[in-house]
Amino acid sequence: MAQRVINFNPGPSALPLAVLEQAKSEMLDFQGTGMSLLETSHRSKPFEAVLDSAIQRTRRLLGLDESYQVLFIQGGASMQFAMVPMNLAEGKPVDYVNTGTWATKAIKEARICGNETRVVATSEDAQFTYIPEKIDFNADAAYLHITSNNTIRGTQWRNFPDAGAVPLVCDMSSDIFSRRFDPRPFGLIYAGAQKNAGPAGVTMVIIREDLLKRVPKELPTMFKYTTYSDNRSLYNTPPCFSIYICELVLKWIEETVGGLDRMEKINEEKAALLYNYIDSQDFYRGTARPDSRSRMNVTFLLPEAELEKEFLATAVEAGLVGLKGHRSVGGLRASIYNATTIESVKTLVDFMKQFAKR
Amino acid sequence: MAQRVINFNPGPSALPLAVLEQAKSEMLDFQGTGMSLLETSHRSKPFEAVLDSAIQRTRRLLGLDESYQVLFIQGGASMQFAMVPMNLAEGKPVDYVNTGTWATKAIKEARICGNETRVVATSEDAQFTYIPEKIDFNADAAYLHITSNNTIRGTQWRNFPDAGAVPLVCDMSSDIFSRRFDPRPFGLIYAGAQKNAGPAGVTMVIIREDLLKRVPKELPTMFKYTTYSDNRSLYNTPPCFSIYICELVLKWIEETVGGLDRMEKINEEKAALLYNYIDSQDFYRGTARPDSRSRMNVTFLLPEAELEKEFLATAVEAGLVGLKGHRSVGGLRASIYNATTIESVKTLVDFMKQFAKR
Repeated sequence: MAQRVINFNPGPSALPLAVLEQAKSEMLDFQGTGMSLLETSHRSKPFEAVLDSAIQRTRRLLGLDESYQVLFIQGGASMQFAMVPMNLAEGKPVDYVNTGTWATKAIKEARICGNETRVVATSEDAQFTYIPEKIDFNADAAYLHITSNNTIRGTQWRNFPDAGAVPLVCDMSSDIFSRRFDPRPFGLIYAGAQKNAGPAGVTMVIIREDLLKRVPKELPTMFKYTTYSDNRSLYNTPPCFSIYICELVLKWIEETVGGLDRMEKINEEKAALLYNYIDSQDFYRGTARPDSRSRMNVTFLLPEAELEKEFLATAVEAGLVGLKGHRSVGGLRASIYNATTIESVKTLVDFMKQFAKR
Repeated sequence: MAQRVINFNPGPSALPLAVLEQAKSEMLDFQGTGMSLLETSHRSKPFEAVLDSAIQRTRRLLGLDESYQVLFIQGGASMQFAMVPMNLAEGKPVDYVNTGTWATKAIKEARICGNETRVVATSEDAQFTYIPEKIDFNADAAYLHITSNNTIRGTQWRNFPDAGAVPLVCDMSSDIFSRRFDPRPFGLIYAGAQKNAGPAGVTMVIIREDLLKRVPKELPTMFKYTTYSDNRSLYNTPPCFSIYICELVLKWIEETVGGLDRMEKINEEKAALLYNYIDSQDFYRGTARPDSRSRMNVTFLLPEAELEKEFLATAVEAGLVGLKGHRSVGGLRASIYNATTIESVKTLVDFMKQFAKR
């Protein structure tokens, strides 16, 4: 019997135990095919059923209407930082809100791709510890790019900005499927799967059909969104096993958790447990501005940085792993994505209480 | 107990049973970490050990000296069709040998990328059923691109061409790790893993350091080989699980099979079993010119195309799957990559004999 730890990794991160158990049970024989999904042709009926199910579950969970396509692309969100401006800019200026490291990287790639790239709001003045309210919208922008959740500084958009007719483009890598939102203002949503949707190695791209019309004909085939939309993500061999795990995760959200509203309630409860405890005492100190706090990544400090190593080592002894802050900012971080249970968060709070007493 | 079939899929394709069994046994607890490899941070020691081992095993198996780097990139060989000219052309003409569908696609992407693209040899005159001998080399080419094995028509380079000082660039997706070769004429080798090296979702790129100097600075970050070489393939989250399965496959070649020379002998034996049988009778007919036959993909026809459906259905009943030819050419194809055992090929030959009798 495997000794499982409680995994607060920021990504790749915890997966639902039921998903891993199913993947394990099917490893030598996927659904009676006599072979592993790892050995299954991407052009076979069993794999196409997995792919279709992942698409349909995404549609149902997010409430996407017919105008959206769900694509599976390789290369991570970092690849999308370049594909978005290459495909969607149409020679117009592109607008970005800078809320931290990942947004900064997206801005850098838009500039490399040769577009006039405007930062229309930023929280750089306070080390990205909040989500800016005031955004200098431009009606002439090809799109407005935001990062819905910022894993490193632990901030998250509570309400998405209204950019009028300008489509929102959103890096939703770290909070997709964690809460209900209105998809209609979004022209494109992308998400590396390895936090809430599945394992590393596949990126979900949700694109509205009017944006597909912008894709330039002369791009290399694999960099065009239309290559994926015209071929149901099967132009070439997709990352089959990663898509399979995504399908199992989405099935778990729909059938075991009970849907996105229930998932959101659980996530609210988990975050409240941690933030309420942090706010109730003086030993730990949250680093994000309270109105901008992320429900996915809870960032906090100890009274002295020297205590961090001891905290982390003691936590590992107690079976709590992945609590180190990002190497660029230090401190501590509990990533509590969908697969983290309420019980795991309670265990963490209890541990934090005990550590504070010592 | 899983009922396993004999899998002749062209890719994704059969994996060694021992690899699947290890992946299964570690699915909930990777090497005592208390979490699945699917949940493990790409910046953790356990994953870095997997990555390092995959690189070192590749170096040892292929006999690569210090001047080569081994990279893991997403997007499949199709992504490399564009990355190769984007990174390596230096504004010079690029030369390609056209040996079939995949080479044709590589040529198309080089043209999209704006390079003067010369087809210096082709076997299109005979439906790509052979490997051209006469190649019109150009000393001014940035590189000469070849496709070492052609899965669709079942042809394979027996000896690689000598292009002098012009580096060879090779799509080795379907026969890497199947045989010994001298790596020194190769400036770059790429291989989608899903045939001989692992599962879908990761592409190995082996690049010689002098070619890294050609990479233009202004490319988007994820399209530059230097992004991967400067960051040990960890600039962003790599496809961790796919790399893990590659490592297990390479370990199997080294430790269970006994190295690349032994692997090559087994592959020769397997191919000989099939081709010798095909040549010994009149019912089945091989489609590739004998001197160009692939040891990985054995393509053949029945006396009448109408018999194909019956052959395939009867084969599936006998537990032999994946024998249908590529949708673009029809006919039959047995893909006998590294993980296919001699016993499996003997079973296929026995089946073919029985079917021919009926």
